[in-house]
Amino acid sequence: MSSEIPLSGAQHPQAEEESSKSTSKKAAKKEVAKQEKLRRQQERALAAATSFLSVDDDNDPFAANYGYVPLNDLQSKEEVNLRKWTEVGALVEQLKDQQVLIRGRAQTIRPVSKNMSFVVVREKGLTVQCVVTAQPDVVSRQMVKFVASLSRESIVNVEGVVSVPNDPIRSTTQQQVEVQVRKLYCVNKALPTLPINIEDAARSEAEIERALQAGEQLVRVNQDTRLNYRVLDMRTPANQGIFRIQSQVCNIFRQFLLSEGFVEIHTPKLIAGSSEGGAAVFKLDYKGQPACLAQSPQLHKQMAICGDFGRVFEIGPVFRAEDSYTHRHLCEFTGLDVEMEIKNHYSEVMDMVDRLFVTMFDALNENCKKELEAVGRQYPFEPLKYLRQTLRLRFEEGIQMLKDAGVEIDPYDDLNTEVERKLGQLVLEKYGTEFYILHRYPLAVRPFYTMPCYDDVKYSNSFDVFIRGEEIISGAQRVHVPDFLAERAQAFGIDVSTISTYIDSFRYGAPPHGGFGVGLERVVMLFCGLNNIRKTSLFPRDPLRLAP
Amino acid sequence: MSSEIPLSGAQHPQAEEESSKSTSKKAAKKEVAKQEKLRRQQERALAAATSFLSVDDDNDPFAANYGYVPLNDLQSKEEVNLRKWTEVGALVEQLKDQQVLIRGRAQTIRPVSKNMSFVVVREKGLTVQCVVTAQPDVVSRQMVKFVASLSRESIVNVEGVVSVPNDPIRSTTQQQVEVQVRKLYCVNKALPTLPINIEDAARSEAEIERALQAGEQLVRVNQDTRLNYRVLDMRTPANQGIFRIQSQVCNIFRQFLLSEGFVEIHTPKLIAGSSEGGAAVFKLDYKGQPACLAQSPQLHKQMAICGDFGRVFEIGPVFRAEDSYTHRHLCEFTGLDVEMEIKNHYSEVMDMVDRLFVTMFDALNENCKKELEAVGRQYPFEPLKYLRQTLRLRFEEGIQMLKDAGVEIDPYDDLNTEVERKLGQLVLEKYGTEFYILHRYPLAVRPFYTMPCYDDVKYSNSFDVFIRGEEIISGAQRVHVPDFLAERAQAFGIDVSTISTYIDSFRYGAPPHGGFGVGLERVVMLFCGLNNIRKTSLFPRDPLRLAP
Repeated sequence: MSSEIPLSGAQHPQAEEESSKSTSKKAAKKEVAKQEKLRRQQERALAAATSFLSVDDDNDPFAANYGYVPLNDLQSKEEVNLRKWTEVGALVEQLKDQQVLIRGRAQTIRPVSKNMSFVVVREKGLTVQCVVTAQPDVVSRQMVKFVASLSRESIVNVEGVVSVPNDPIRSTTQQQVEVQVRKLYCVNKALPTLPINIEDAARSEAEIERALQAGEQLVRVNQDTRLNYRVLDMRTPANQGIFRIQSQVCNIFRQFLLSEGFVEIHTPKLIAGSSEGGAAVFKLDYKGQPACLAQSPQLHKQMAICGDFGRVFEIGPVFRAEDSYTHRHLCEFTGLDVEMEIKNHYSEVMDMVDRLFVTMFDALNENCKKELEAVGRQYPFEPLKYLRQTLRLRFEEGIQMLKDAGVEIDPYDDLNTEVERKLGQLVLEKYGTEFYILHRYPLAVRPFYTMPCYDDVKYSNSFDVFIRGEEIISGAQRVHVPDFLAERAQAFGIDVSTISTYIDSFRYGAPPHGGFGVGLERVVMLFCGLNNIRKTSLFPRDPLRLAP
Repeated sequence: MSSEIPLSGAQHPQAEEESSKSTSKKAAKKEVAKQEKLRRQQERALAAATSFLSVDDDNDPFAANYGYVPLNDLQSKEEVNLRKWTEVGALVEQLKDQQVLIRGRAQTIRPVSKNMSFVVVREKGLTVQCVVTAQPDVVSRQMVKFVASLSRESIVNVEGVVSVPNDPIRSTTQQQVEVQVRKLYCVNKALPTLPINIEDAARSEAEIERALQAGEQLVRVNQDTRLNYRVLDMRTPANQGIFRIQSQVCNIFRQFLLSEGFVEIHTPKLIAGSSEGGAAVFKLDYKGQPACLAQSPQLHKQMAICGDFGRVFEIGPVFRAEDSYTHRHLCEFTGLDVEMEIKNHYSEVMDMVDRLFVTMFDALNENCKKELEAVGRQYPFEPLKYLRQTLRLRFEEGIQMLKDAGVEIDPYDDLNTEVERKLGQLVLEKYGTEFYILHRYPLAVRPFYTMPCYDDVKYSNSFDVFIRGEEIISGAQRVHVPDFLAERAQAFGIDVSTISTYIDSFRYGAPPHGGFGVGLERVVMLFCGLNNIRKTSLFPRDPLRLAP
């Protein structure tokens, strides 16, 4: 039995325009007021356009062809589905003159006259123009009036005949066809004024700039407003694309790994005690015991390897209580985790990363063309450059490249975000790829359970993977020898008694193994060249946001 | 960067025997002592059998052919993998006389004489007998001795030649072949005494009973001990089967839904406020804000529908802080959640359940034969009886069947577990199926957001689905009209202001929709006829267990 969880959070229906970093709050407020004014103007215009209409169904012999569907009819009255539905995306020239029944949203309603109204109907981000024309014995003027009075984003059932206009319709995705409406019912009414308009939310920066240069101020919806009204924001073509791409990333990840003999596991997110990290975990009370939320499935996936599953993966939430306010950190994200036995060398793990991601990028480019286009229309980006065999650089080589470019850094320290970006640039110039593996990281900057290199204890059998200069994957061979693991923990100043269960897991015979973790939201963000991880999380959680 | 999370919990290395419900704690303790004694006897026997051996490699010209692999060699020394590995499961008659290299665990070591030792090597639950025979110029006596001294569950690399014995080997899964060992290296040593032995953990109740009748007391490992040493317990053939089947359930679930146009989503587990349920949620502090863990993705999956995704699903953890100590409740489990637009009738949702699960059962029976057999050897069960088209009974019909069988219950109350079992029995007798849908539940026993029936407000457009008399799925059409939803919440005594975000989600145009939630662990438990949900959760969490 599923039970309901209410959400809270700032949800006052108001739209804001994006204030650039340098713009003051005052200017932003002014823009809000301006936009409100604009909306009120639009509404008055709509009211004026439809003022000549007053519904009087009694005089209309075609009254049964339109109207609001009563709730009772939507409570599963009609069990046998005799009606054939067509998806908006399936409306093509070949259907000319055929009767169709569609359901979607009234995206824009344009009353032209007493005799004609246009409605653009949208389903799953795809749109078609529907024409309602008063015609004797078919469509009444009252129906035209009813259609003109619909509120945007309402759900409608439309019955009509497919026609092919002389000129393609520029403003819809189904450009070769229109629907000549015979019947139109409103299934669910949206509020007449929405906190954000879909066309505003769907606008690209370039459009706003072009309009500005032509002297027109278009509404720009900022990231926070989008997230406050995510239900509306999700409806933009770009967001429909982003989350369908995300779904495909998971699908390809799993299909590839299953085909390689991996087993999918589900490890607990509720963990006893509080992690050694302390600050970075969410703590809670578990039936009187101190507990915390898992920062990664690291331990349990390693236990699954010690439990003879050989190769395992998991897709699940990962919780980080860090106070990071960057474009690339979230307090809750989706981790794609992999762990596998190693026969000889940690390169086996890197091989898996290599083949997995080349397969994934190929499949996304092939199977998500429309979605990538939709994202690119709002947020233009260049397709990711990657090689058939993924470039592997040793950490030392990376340091040398940076040195040669005049970047002086400690060769045994971790790379910061800025340096990672720089290295990404150098790699792109030299090797022509935006996707590469950097391995043999300094031991000191990796977690205690990372296996040191056989030939130099200053380095480790570990790697990070980068897309467009940003880290998306971290991986390594793990220490599988319990006494050595305890020694390594001590070297990191960890109280070994607090991790005895972890260490004991390796006392019953443990194969050499390694693995990696991927941030799903980062993969999608960087594959699509987006600038903020909040764009690729359906309901992001950061230090300031816990809603909706 | 993944970080380490330590676990805590009772982890004292001791084995216990299962005490039947009626047996006193005293008897259980006695059994523990008995078993300890047995183990000590076994160890003494092993020590005696190997006492004649003392490794002295200097005198052995074949010393390079065996031994403990030093840690340094396991730190990814050898990058290029020239060695070809064969999986134990791939060892078949056709490989006769061929050289193979395998890695697995020394499951049982049986020293026969100074000249011969047997080792059964296990990989992913599959086993092969390896024979080490002292032979001039090939295998030394010292090597035989080394092999005899191995501790069980140690990881070994074995090189040898496949031979075909005259009689099939009864005790291994690869019955038609043996490996005549040439080289054997121990990659990782297990403790000489393990808290539980795999053969004890793998034993069926029937074996224990048979032995008991023959006067022999075999060790029975109880559920709690298994879970304390899950890393060992996981290695039994039944558990290898259970979790590989679980992996397949997820795979089939997703593949089916993706093929039906569903989008996979990931909703947040960190939720603002504390749910109206109160007692049943885990509460925590989120950066100074009160928060709780999601009891289901209900709200967010509905928001995704309002956000135009049309059809969505999610696989993710679900948290219930209930004090349930039953065989079928966990505090954290894996929810398989589905939500979809409805065109006409909630039967569209039931159609999806029907086709999804018939597809799933077919695929499991077809693709997981070996895994199901492995489970059945330890926990015998009858294959699930299900129809090509899933039986749908109205709640009223179910009540009538119960009435006819002499079970008198309130026709507007929910069914308790016992009554559900009884109904399952009656349905099996009458319709020959152990999988069916019961729908049109009384409105009062469903959550407030459940759509009432169009023709009778005492009933609702909802359903439960049962396997072998136990509920695994709960689903319904939802109320998509915001004002009516508020009215329904009030009728349930819920403060509407606490769920305003939820209700507001439907004010921007909401299509009729419905969905369902499935408990992954329950599906696997009931498909395999297991008696405890802890058997199908890799690391179960219940009110008393938060480790490992």
